[in-house]
Amino acid sequence: MQRKINVAVIGGGSWATALVKMLSDNDQEKSIFWWMRNKDAINYIRQYHHNPNYLSAIEVKIPSAQITDDLVHVIASCDVIIWSIPAAFLKNTLESIASEQLAGKRMISAIKGIIPEENQLVGDYLQTVFDVPLAHIAVISGPCHAEEVSLEKLSYLTIASAATDTATLFADLLCTRYIKTILSDDIYGTEYGAVLKNIYAVASGICHGIGYGDNFQAVLISNAIREMARFVAKVHPIGRDINESAYLGDLLVTAYSQFSRNRTFGNMIGKGYTVKSAQLEMNMIAEGYYASKCIHEINKTYRVDIPICRAVYAILYEKHSPHVEIKLLAEQLT
Amino acid sequence: MQRKINVAVIGGGSWATALVKMLSDNDQEKSIFWWMRNKDAINYIRQYHHNPNYLSAIEVKIPSAQITDDLVHVIASCDVIIWSIPAAFLKNTLESIASEQLAGKRMISAIKGIIPEENQLVGDYLQTVFDVPLAHIAVISGPCHAEEVSLEKLSYLTIASAATDTATLFADLLCTRYIKTILSDDIYGTEYGAVLKNIYAVASGICHGIGYGDNFQAVLISNAIREMARFVAKVHPIGRDINESAYLGDLLVTAYSQFSRNRTFGNMIGKGYTVKSAQLEMNMIAEGYYASKCIHEINKTYRVDIPICRAVYAILYEKHSPHVEIKLLAEQLT
Repeated sequence: MQRKINVAVIGGGSWATALVKMLSDNDQEKSIFWWMRNKDAINYIRQYHHNPNYLSAIEVKIPSAQITDDLVHVIASCDVIIWSIPAAFLKNTLESIASEQLAGKRMISAIKGIIPEENQLVGDYLQTVFDVPLAHIAVISGPCHAEEVSLEKLSYLTIASAATDTATLFADLLCTRYIKTILSDDIYGTEYGAVLKNIYAVASGICHGIGYGDNFQAVLISNAIREMARFVAKVHPIGRDINESAYLGDLLVTAYSQFSRNRTFGNMIGKGYTVKSAQLEMNMIAEGYYASKCIHEINKTYRVDIPICRAVYAILYEKHSPHVEIKLLAEQLT
Repeated sequence: MQRKINVAVIGGGSWATALVKMLSDNDQEKSIFWWMRNKDAINYIRQYHHNPNYLSAIEVKIPSAQITDDLVHVIASCDVIIWSIPAAFLKNTLESIASEQLAGKRMISAIKGIIPEENQLVGDYLQTVFDVPLAHIAVISGPCHAEEVSLEKLSYLTIASAATDTATLFADLLCTRYIKTILSDDIYGTEYGAVLKNIYAVASGICHGIGYGDNFQAVLISNAIREMARFVAKVHPIGRDINESAYLGDLLVTAYSQFSRNRTFGNMIGKGYTVKSAQLEMNMIAEGYYASKCIHEINKTYRVDIPICRAVYAILYEKHSPHVEIKLLAEQLT
């Protein structure tokens, strides 16, 4: 018998809402705490038991008192924390929290991104700034669009941690009849893969927006997974099969699915929208936009040949023409 | 200066029609001969310069006398032959041809399939039955839906041959401003990959038809490429990167594209159609149906662990319930 644990979900977006549903539908006895910034949303959920902004079909089964904007309280109350806010907001959200408050807690990052100010993976950031030991950190990877969790479509999550017991803890908390969990020890490769795939999904959207077809998309993604393999092999050289679900699967669902906001964002760029107007139109953060800059900075150290990432960076940050940049990229694809 | 050569395209379907277009748009001086069985189609094309049945938008620029149902004449007239008929019909089509008539000619298989009666790859069949030397044989692989060739969407073809000069010959004949050609020496891996991907596209369609979502599809394809890697490594163990366009790219375009007849066929099976009614409805051969049986037979020798192929075989040939079979398969995916 496992003892009852308190689990915090930090974030109010669609992925956080899906994680709350998984935790609720999971059999293990637990108490769920849910933090989000938006007070109106909190009041709405307390009253109507549905998130008004994301995946509104999901019934939220958490006691009202445990849905709150009091981060200090939520963290103090929980042994286990799930981070699910955009990477761009993590630093700001954690401003009021000191290392001691996170001491002894195990945590998992459901964030597919890099802390922009630091160019650090979420795991690295938690280690270096909050002294969380590596063995207490895990990351979640898909392929898993939140929208399909809401529909209870069978999905697979990979839980990666350097420590098997931490990976197992989270795998046991998140599995349900529609979620299968896979364990991995490749925390860095999984995190970088999840970041890169958002950039490739933007690239895929850009090409679609310009008018390239399915044949070209397939070549692009086949090159993207090889680019990802090169990059993660350089930054974290361990034996891994890049075609496992957490890497290739996650890339495929992001690059090919209608639910992908990164692909949608890229599509608008390919059709001629500016970055600003595409973002205003979407009402969601396309993580790939921020990831593009972070990987560009990080790759100044590693100098891996990543032509797809370079093309996306040139289009988004150096205002190069998508038509020209993708035409040049096409010459390099094989 | 290359001397002018005579090229035969054998087959009247959409891929053959697309190949005729590529050859016509390619700069190298040549004379194109086109064989097909359907006399009405021949007469129509001679008069109107469009194939009435497939990719009708393409203008056919071949002299009428060179479009014919006289296979002996076409083969006698040409130095170079492109085979583009369904694998299931090849044996029958070649009945009137003797080994001597093919002597000295170089040929490429644009057929994604296995000769059903023999359980042989097209290349093997040409070698063993017609004594064509391996060095004279090449295969074409995508990702390349014929429909997008018709639209002149940028596409990449891989030309694989054990002999570099044969691969180069065909690569030089088929490249155009919208077709890039990639050379490969992995003729067996390319051919088996092209056969297997049709089975995986059927699987993908079955799952979609049953109601599995994008998350599951991504896991299925991530498992499929690993299954393909295992199979080709066993039957032809050379160093290859299974993520190259000819393998992964070709799988992706077939499994994800709206143009894929194999996926469409699988989708109907998943929705409850019988094999017979799905085939009648489609008016096209889904190569994956035949490939499933051939790979099942061939794998009796190699005994590779190929659970996705096994599930498709069980559904199509042993009349197992798609729901049950995919549920069992899902337990084995990672």
